[in-house]
Formats: sequence, C-alpha cells, structure tokens
Amino acid sequence: MFFASDNWAGAHPAINERLMRESTRFAAAYGTSELDRSIERRFNDLFEREVAVFFVATGTAANSLALASVERPGGVVFAHTEAHVIEDECGAPDFFSGMRMIPVDGGEGKMNPLNLKARMARYPQDAVHHGRAAAITLTQATEVGSIYSLDEIKAISSIAKAGSLPLHMDGARFANALIGLDTTPAEMTWKRGVDILSFGGTKNGCWCAEAIVFFDPDMAKELPFIRKRTAQLFSKSRFIAAQFEAYLNDGLWLELAAHANAMADRLREGLRASNSARQAWPTQSNEVFAIVPKSSAKAAADKGAKFYDWLQPSNMQDTVSDDETLIRLVTSFATTADDVDAFLDAIA
Amino acid sequence: MFFASDNWAGAHPAINERLMRESTRFAAAYGTSELDRSIERRFNDLFEREVAVFFVATGTAANSLALASVERPGGVVFAHTEAHVIEDECGAPDFFSGMRMIPVDGGEGKMNPLNLKARMARYPQDAVHHGRAAAITLTQATEVGSIYSLDEIKAISSIAKAGSLPLHMDGARFANALIGLDTTPAEMTWKRGVDILSFGGTKNGCWCAEAIVFFDPDMAKELPFIRKRTAQLFSKSRFIAAQFEAYLNDGLWLELAAHANAMADRLREGLRASNSARQAWPTQSNEVFAIVPKSSAKAAADKGAKFYDWLQPSNMQDTVSDDETLIRLVTSFATTADDVDAFLDAIA
Amino acid sequence: MFFASDNWAGAHPAINERLMRESTRFAAAYGTSELDRSIERRFNDLFEREVAVFFVATGTAANSLALASVERPGGVVFAHTEAHVIEDECGAPDFFSGMRMIPVDGGEGKMNPLNLKARMARYPQDAVHHGRAAAITLTQATEVGSIYSLDEIKAISSIAKAGSLPLHMDGARFANALIGLDTTPAEMTWKRGVDILSFGGTKNGCWCAEAIVFFDPDMAKELPFIRKRTAQLFSKSRFIAAQFEAYLNDGLWLELAAHANAMADRLREGLRASNSARQAWPTQSNEVFAIVPKSSAKAAADKGAKFYDWLQPSNMQDTVSDDETLIRLVTSFATTADDVDAFLDAIA
Amino acid sequence: MFFASDNWAGAHPAINERLMRESTRFAAAYGTSELDRSIERRFNDLFEREVAVFFVATGTAANSLALASVERPGGVVFAHTEAHVIEDECGAPDFFSGMRMIPVDGGEGKMNPLNLKARMARYPQDAVHHGRAAAITLTQATEVGSIYSLDEIKAISSIAKAGSLPLHMDGARFANALIGLDTTPAEMTWKRGVDILSFGGTKNGCWCAEAIVFFDPDMAKELPFIRKRTAQLFSKSRFIAAQFEAYLNDGLWLELAAHANAMADRLREGLRASNSARQAWPTQSNEVFAIVPKSSAKAAADKGAKFYDWLQPSNMQDTVSDDETLIRLVTSFATTADDVDAFLDAIA
Repeated sequence: MFFASDNWAGAHPAINERLMRESTRFAAAYGTSELDRSIERRFNDLFEREVAVFFVATGTAANSLALASVERPGGVVFAHTEAHVIEDECGAPDFFSGMRMIPVDGGEGKMNPLNLKARMARYPQDAVHHGRAAAITLTQATEVGSIYSLDEIKAISSIAKAGSLPLHMDGARFANALIGLDTTPAEMTWKRGVDILSFGGTKNGCWCAEAIVFFDPDMAKELPFIRKRTAQLFSKSRFIAAQFEAYLNDGLWLELAAHANAMADRLREGLRASNSARQAWPTQSNEVFAIVPKSSAKAAADKGAKFYDWLQPSNMQDTVSDDETLIRLVTSFATTADDVDAFLDAIA
Repeated sequence: MFFASDNWAGAHPAINERLMRESTRFAAAYGTSELDRSIERRFNDLFEREVAVFFVATGTAANSLALASVERPGGVVFAHTEAHVIEDECGAPDFFSGMRMIPVDGGEGKMNPLNLKARMARYPQDAVHHGRAAAITLTQATEVGSIYSLDEIKAISSIAKAGSLPLHMDGARFANALIGLDTTPAEMTWKRGVDILSFGGTKNGCWCAEAIVFFDPDMAKELPFIRKRTAQLFSKSRFIAAQFEAYLNDGLWLELAAHANAMADRLREGLRASNSARQAWPTQSNEVFAIVPKSSAKAAADKGAKFYDWLQPSNMQDTVSDDETLIRLVTSFATTADDVDAFLDAIA
Repeated sequence: MFFASDNWAGAHPAINERLMRESTRFAAAYGTSELDRSIERRFNDLFEREVAVFFVATGTAANSLALASVERPGGVVFAHTEAHVIEDECGAPDFFSGMRMIPVDGGEGKMNPLNLKARMARYPQDAVHHGRAAAITLTQATEVGSIYSLDEIKAISSIAKAGSLPLHMDGARFANALIGLDTTPAEMTWKRGVDILSFGGTKNGCWCAEAIVFFDPDMAKELPFIRKRTAQLFSKSRFIAAQFEAYLNDGLWLELAAHANAMADRLREGLRASNSARQAWPTQSNEVFAIVPKSSAKAAADKGAKFYDWLQPSNMQDTVSDDETLIRLVTSFATTADDVDAFLDAIA
Repeated sequence: MFFASDNWAGAHPAINERLMRESTRFAAAYGTSELDRSIERRFNDLFEREVAVFFVATGTAANSLALASVERPGGVVFAHTEAHVIEDECGAPDFFSGMRMIPVDGGEGKMNPLNLKARMARYPQDAVHHGRAAAITLTQATEVGSIYSLDEIKAISSIAKAGSLPLHMDGARFANALIGLDTTPAEMTWKRGVDILSFGGTKNGCWCAEAIVFFDPDMAKELPFIRKRTAQLFSKSRFIAAQFEAYLNDGLWLELAAHANAMADRLREGLRASNSARQAWPTQSNEVFAIVPKSSAKAAADKGAKFYDWLQPSNMQDTVSDDETLIRLVTSFATTADDVDAFLDAIA
C-alpha cells in the first residue's frame, strides 16, 4: 500500500535488464558514446522533429537548467503558485538561472491565463527596477493531479509568444499526462508552442532518467556548458541512455503510465463508492487527493498504508471539517490492483 | 583494448545484481529510506568514526559541493595545477562555492608543500582586495597516476591546520590509492588531517555512485540544503546506496581496485620490457603515462586501442622527441590481462 | 513642484561644504582613513553601543549586502509584499544573498504579524525541499508612507527571535521615521530587536551616503569581503564619511527629515481642505498618497508638477472611481512651503 | 609626500564647483535626467562614434560588469597575471560574470601575445570540461606603470578577433595612458579593436566617477539590468554625470593626467640623478617603481612620505639585494613639484 509518491517505486524489469546488458561493455564517457547518440535520435522520432536532448540527474536539475538556458539578468519566470519549481526545489531554479519565480494563481494547479497576463503586465521589458518577464513554465501533469488540455497549453503558449517569452514544460509526469489526454508527444509540446521540456522517466519506471529536450536545437547551444558547470554531466551517461532505450522501446513508457493512471482510476472509483471519503478535486493522472476522516486515515496508516497529508488550500477551509484530513495518494507503474483494494479496505 | 579512462568501463555484476534486487521494492524517497540510513552507517564502520555522508550524481558535484560547504566570501582554494577541480570541471567548483581555485605547482601531480606555503602567504585572512585562503584540496590518487604518501598528506594537512583551513581530498580514485599505499581509509584521511572526502565509486565498478564524506559531521550542517539547491538530491537515492552496499560488501571495492592497479603494473612492466616505449614518470595507481613513437601510437589506435594523447608538461620538452607522443593509459576493474597483452603487442 | 521622489532633490549646502573641504586633502583609500574611522565611531554614539558600519553605494546595495551577510543555502527572507527588496531592486537581494524573498501581506505597507507567522510556519528549519526561514526584513518608514510603531517593531522582532532569525531594517527613510515617532535611533532599532540596519542618507540631503549598520559587530565579520566582492568598496570612501559627518553634525539630519515631514503635513492638510482630493490612506512620514480626479492630476502635471501615478492596490477598487487616479507625492529636505502651496493650487 | 596611490588624492576644485551647482537643483533620478543624457552624448563626441555609457560606483564594478555583459557559461577571461581583475578585486569579476580569470604572463605588466595565444589554445570553443575562451581584458595604463603602444593593443585585439572574443580595456588610468601615448580616445580604443572600456575618473581628479563604455551599443542591451541587479545604479546618478561634465570640459581631464605624468617624470629624473635609488623597470605613466636601500625607504617614511612596498616579481630576485626594497610611487593631479622634491630629499 505505497501511495506516498511514484518515486517510492523501484525500477521496471525491462529497464533493469537493459542496464545489466549495458554494464558488460566499454564505451566512451560523458555522453559521447554511440548509445548516447542513438537515444538522442530516438527523441527526434518520438517528437517528430529534430530536437536537442540532454540527460541530467534529477527533475530539479532538468527544470533548473532549462530555465538557466533562457536566463536574462533581472528576468522573472512565471509558474503556478504550487509548481515544483516554487514549492519543492529549494531555490535551485533561482540559483541556476539567476531569476525569480513569480507565482501565478489558478484552479486545479493550472495557471489561469488571465492571472498570467495580469502578472506579466507588471514586468514589462524595460522594467529595470521591478524586473522583466523572461520565461513561463507550466507543469504537465500538474502537482495536484490535473492535466492541461491541449487548448489550455495553447492558451498559455499564446501569451508566451505575445510576450516573446520561451515556454517551458515541467514533464516530471509527462507520460501520465499523455495517457490522460490520449495524444502524442508532439501534439502536447511543440505543436502547442512549448519550447523546452523536462522529460521525466524516473517517476514512471526508470531509476534515474531525466532529460531536457529543446524543440529548437539553436536554443540549446549553451546547455553543454551549463550542464557541466552545474555538475550534471554523468561520466557513464550511457546508463541513462540505456534506461531511456528500454523505457521507450515498444511503448513501454506509455504502458507503464497507462497502468499507473488506471490504478488511480480504480482508487477514485473505490473512494467514490465508499461512504467515508470523497475527492478533494477532480484529477486525471496518477494522483488522487481525498478528504477522509482523520480516524480512517489513521486506521489505514496503522495497517501500513503510506501516503502524505497535504497542505489544505485556503479555499477549502469550509469543505474540510475538523474531523477530516486531506491526503494525497499517488500510484505508479508498480502499484497493483491488490494494493489499491487493500488500501480501500483499510481506509473504509 | 580500452585504456581511454576508467569511466569507459561498465558496472560490476555484483553491483548490478544488488540494483536488480533493489528495483523490486518500494521505499522512501530522497535519501530517507532504511537502506540509505544503513549505508550511511557503513561509512562509519569504514572510516572508524562517525561521519556524515551525502550521495551526489558526479565526481564534479562531490568536489564542488564539498568546497561550497566551506565557502567564505572572497575565499580562495588551493589545488594542484593539474587538479580536476581546475582542469576538468568547467568552473563548477568556482560556480558552486563562489571561490577561486589557485594553482599550486609540484612534481608528479602533487602540491609541493613549499609552493603551497608560498602561495598561501599571499592570501592572508585580512586580504580584502586580494582574497583570503579558505581551503585546500588534494587529489588522491592524483590526475597523473601518482599517490601522496601518508606523510605527504600529513605535510599538506599540517599547513592547512596552521592556517586554520579545511582540507578536502578528491578521492575519485580513492580505492586505487588505498591499494597503492596498502593502508586503511581512516589512515589515509582523517588520521592524516583530511576534513572532507569526495569518495568515488563510479570509476571503480559502480555505474553512478559518488559520496561526500565529512569526518566532522558538524561541518556538514548546511550540506543537505546545498545539495538540494544544486539539484543533486536523487529521488531514488537508495539506488546509489544499493551500489555502495554491493561495492563495500566483502571488500569488493578493494578487490576491484587491486585488479585495476595490477593491470597497470602489467602494462608498466610490459612497456618497460619493450624497446619502443618508456614511462613518462613513475605511477603507482591505475594510470600509466608513456612516451611512444607516434607511429606506434597510430598502429595501436588503428588496431582499435583506445587511449588519449596527453598534453605534454612544459618541463618535458627535452624528453619527448618530435617523433614521439605522450599517451595516457588507464586500467579499470574491467581490464583483462588479455587486453593489456593485446595492447602491448599492438604498440610494439 | 517636485514631488516625484525624495531622490530627485540635490544635496544640502552643509554637506557640499564638508565635501569641498575634504577634497583638498590626501588621505588613505578604501575606508582606512582617519575620517572613515572617526565616522564609524560617530555611529557608536548615535546608536549608544558599539556597532560595525560599512558604507556602500546605494540603498539596494545596503539591503542586498545586509541580507547576504546572513545568507544560508536554501534560505528564504520574509518581507512585506510591497517592500523595496521585492518590488524595486531587480532581484539584487536574491542575487547577492542567494535567498528568495517571500512576500508577507499586511495593511498600510506593514507586515501583519499573524501573516508573518503563518508564512514562516511553512519554512521550518528542516525544510530541505521547500526552503527554510533565514531572515526577516522590515522597511521603516514603509514604501507607502506609514511607520511601524515601536511596539509593532517589537512584535516583528519577537517573531524573529522565536525563530532564531536575524531581523533587518531597510532604513532608506530612517530619519523620516525617527521624526515621525519622535524617538531615538537606539529605541527604534536594537532596543526593539533589530539586528542590521540599512541607514540611508541619500534621500535626506546627501548625494550618495548609505551605510549598513550591524548592532552585533560579530555578525559583520564577513561583510568586508562581501562588500569588496560585490564592488561596493569606494576607493575614496572618505567622501561618504564626510557626507555622514556633516549629515549627523548638530542634528542636521533630523532637522532635514523634520522639514520633509512637515512639508508632507502641509500637503496633507492642504489636500484635506480641498474639495477635489482625499488621502488614499493615512501616512506619517514624507510621503502622501492621494486620490485625485484625473483632470486635476493632468492640470497639475501640465503646470509642471512632478509626481508618479501609483499602482492601485487591489483592495481599493471600490474606493477609486474611473475618473480618479492614485498619485504618490514625496517631500524632501529641499521641498519648500511655496512648492507645496503651488502644488495645492495647481491640483485644486 | 603622498605617493601611496592616486586614489589618496581628493577632488579637483572644478569638479567640486560643478557638484555644488548641481546640488541646488531637482532632477529625475536613476540616470534619467537631462544631465545624464547630455553627458552620455558627450561620450559620443569624445570617442567619435555612438557609444553606450553606464555610470557605476567603482572601478571594480566597471570591470566586473563589463565582463558580466559578455558572460558565457563555462567561459574564461584572459588577463595579465598582475591585472587588477586578478589581483585586487576579491573575485568580483568572477562573481559577477560567473567566469574564471586566466593569468597570462608578459613583461612590464603587458600580456605577451604569444603567451596569450598559447593560453587561448587550451580553451577552444568546444571545451566543455576545460572551459572555453570568452573574453580578453587588458589594462591601460598597466598596473606597473607601463603603457601598451597602439600597435600592442592592435596585436592583442587581432588575437581577440581571430578567436571571436570581445576585448575589454580596464582604463582606471585611461587619461594617463592617453597622455603617455599622445593619442586620442578613439585611436586608443575602438580604432584598435577594443569593444568595451572601463573609463575611470576617480584616480584623476573626480571623487567618484567611473563609467563603462560600449563601442557597439548593441552589446550593452543587458547592462541596464546587470547594473541594477548588482546594486550599481545610483539614484542621484546625475552627480556622477556632473563630475564627468567638469572632468571633460575644456580638456581638464587631460590637463590633470598630463600633470600627474609630469610629476612622475620629475620623480624618475630625480631618482635617476640620485645615487641611492634606481628604477625597477621603465614606466611611462604616473607610476614609478624604484629599488631603494631599506634605510632610505625607512628614512623617507619617517619623514612622513607615504608609499607602498611592492611584491617583488620572481624574476627580480637577483636585481634587488637584501638591503634593498622595491617601492611603488604614484603621482596624481594633486601632486606638487614641491612634494616630489621633498620626497627626493627624504629618500636621498
């Protein structure tokens, strides 16, 4: 009953197997091996265009270096108030990019376009004292389990284009969003105006595989230096490449995300059917937020279920009673239907 | 015939096997799992005292964050002219620590204590304009295949202590040095005055396992924040821990380093026995630097041998003739006696 | 009719005269002259205790270096939403300190203690992902013309002490606040728990005189290096010292601030007496915020009056009609009663 | 007898007078006043082309921000071993630009073009590990009193152009060099390939007037933000402008530099005529380096002469006996012939 986070899961056997095979060979270091090159080409196919790809150690690194690559002195970056770059990366995006993160409100973890425009208006390009708009970043799937629709992505990117700002997508749960929308990587990114993507594999079956993808390779010219200067260039880089190979082969990654999402569906349905719990807000990916009696949460925890209490948003104060608590439940490629059912029993 | 670098090797089967086992489990993320904790305790045993241990992604990260942890505004760090922190990390140590690296000369890749003292004398603690001494870092084994003796480490640390400076050791090839000196981890580090160690596993059989070890845990208080802010905290940190577990179990790490060093010995002996090559300088670890006729080098390369030409130190201009070249040969846990013999044939 | 800002004024004759006198002498550079030392001692007298004083070029520098001196990796700094460090310094505080500025709401430009506590609660000392509380900064007088009472300062500092956080005061308009409260420098700072002060002279009659004052000199140990590394150490530092000497002599600084505040009073009274303008909120220092008909504002501007339109706070949307505008009026040591009266005529 | 540094001098009366006049007016802040604009145009005339000009607080700021404006991740900057940016700015250029300063040797304080080329060859544009060449900076006049000839500047800039690198000139003693070469500002800068200039006024009669001059205004696009973010934008910027106005009016600045240089000539001649002192190396600007008996130096110091002992270059160990010392003597606009003669008497 591990629902604390998808990064509590291990690694998928196919990925292990590929790593095992890779480990018996010699190959050139620092991302220059044939395998590295070949996986870079795989990303071209995946995204239906030439892209520039860089492997890094963590999702925080992917986000921070992506933003560093569009750095402008005195620049500010717009992100949803609850975005990982604001809430969970200890200031790494600011540290690496030298820019401030400006929170933009919006329902269900998504930036509201009107709020975004209003915020941006305060940071015009000549605002030497206040700071100037330099980039926008959105999270897909969001931190709270929702997914920007293709139109919603387009709405954000239109604002970015109007302001000549690059648009970054934090895709730590890219595959879950893709499944949720039933669309293609190209449609969900550059065809909707996304310029740079943090493409995450770790939460979905790899043990450590994160990539920064530039849809315009010209924008990536400084990244090799930025990456090395921030100590993110692996000597045995090909072990990241190997994970991505297995991950992308035969659609494994989509299969894993589909499973995780399905497990979340099962969880949602189970909670809906139960009397003592309700969803805090609708979610579409592999996260479920539930309002449950404190006694039920305790009971489940006592039986070994792992999950996190979640900080209650200010607009929910009337929704959650004193006897209740808001919890986050995350499924992953490794979650089983039995796990879900056991949890539903435990919380009932 | 892969002698380009020890990071061209893959990963040892025992390490793979341990990773495989780890991958089937759920466990807490971000370094908080039982396994992470247990490996931290292993380092206590290894070093015969309580230490603070932090896993990071790369050797460059280990060095840079170690130096960042002793950051002082206007501080400078003393390192050998050919040290990795100066020559091979794209300024990451400066970027993370905000301090300058000051080169100190010395034979065989080791800082000469007199040179070090002379350099330090120019950076007293009140030198607001010039900058002040803040740390010393030495590399063990060095970049050019030599090893500081225990007394030599002590000589450097005495200078550090006299100047109240922390002493860092870049141990990317820590195991190879340990074997070379036939001593213990404790003797080669804190018992000789080393304060912080970059403990490398990647070059010696892991696929990605680097740690920063603080011999005084109090010095490590800021490191959790420094590590997260620099995007070096793995979500599935326990996969680093798992590698280190297998690495340290039953002395595997020493066995692997002993093998690499033995292969270098075999190479040295072979070259010595040959007519057409000679060692550029004596080495004691898993690196050999050889002066060979350009034609021989080409012949070996044509037969598939992998190695790097090395930038000729200025003091060797009379030693290497125009027909010759200086090459670096690195052995690893995966180098076989057959590889060495094939190379000796190819170069002959 | 210059009411755009107090930094549109020139410099007071007494300060000029002192600069003139200083200019004919030779003296040691970089803050080591007798005059520098003597002015440092003057600050001891001024604050009734031993302090450490550092001259810098700008108010932004004073704030940023003050915060840099209490830097902690992953740290965040709490400031009022409208604080200069957040709104008007182009990210300099973040850049120099490596820390994030976290906005805290509150009426009349002052942090509300309850809001501050609530914000701080989200940044506990072990919050490696989220960031940890590292400092609090308050502005006295505030950006919107109000003044924290001594009790209000104490309330903020109590929260700081409870969280073991240093408290900084941005005193760009320190003298105006002092006059407004009719208190002493000591009472308004360290006796109420302030640890570091940006002491501004530029807005009140100097042409360039800003100082960072540490009430605990031990906290200032790194500042000489921080200041030099940020290019803020003047070679002819004594010209700053000379300005401060004239500024502090015979209470000139208080006289100038009293005059500026009195001019603001005259303005307030005049506006109150007029039919067509009203104060947006009560102010106590040398700033007045007025809601005036757009036509009146235009008329005054056409007659040469200088002032800024002010961004309307969101909670005032019902207060300001479509025909009206919110303007900021700042008086200074150089404002005359005639200027005020002429403006009142112009706007009437 | 003040020969410690030209920044020990005060300010010239004409500059004071202009400041005095400025102080009685109101004007727009932060560099937007008419006077600021008018002085910017003066720089166009001065350099015979359109330039972009930015006032900053210190020479260290001018150098550091100039280099920050050409920042590239992983970049390195080449400067003479004894350059101010390396020796005397506490790492500010590294801190602001994020780049390393690489020392280049050469006689008489000037980079030797062959050494420069050799150094640059080690930092090619694809050197992700080692770092890549990003800029060159030369000091005119140099730190040791010499002056690059126009041809020597051209030789350096040709290397810069060949490597597509911007060339910066540290002109803290620009006027002294101009007089020494008897040439024009245009000839000594952009006509010889200089891209960015730190134009210093402080050492030559201003009390605080430093400017960064871009000969291609397009290169300056980020500077307004870089300057504000580094706390170098003065609110009363026009007081810098006013100093520059008086400084440039009627050739005052050249007159002052000519005087300083003439005083250095007098000093050189006097030392040459004396028996007990000799020049350490030939100088052409307002600095003289002399080898004198320690007893003479002490005698002069006892009589009140101010000067610095200078760190003896390693190649002079045979030239300076144990009884002798190397001293630096700097003249300024404020040095009188009587001062020089008194010093010559004192040291005799």
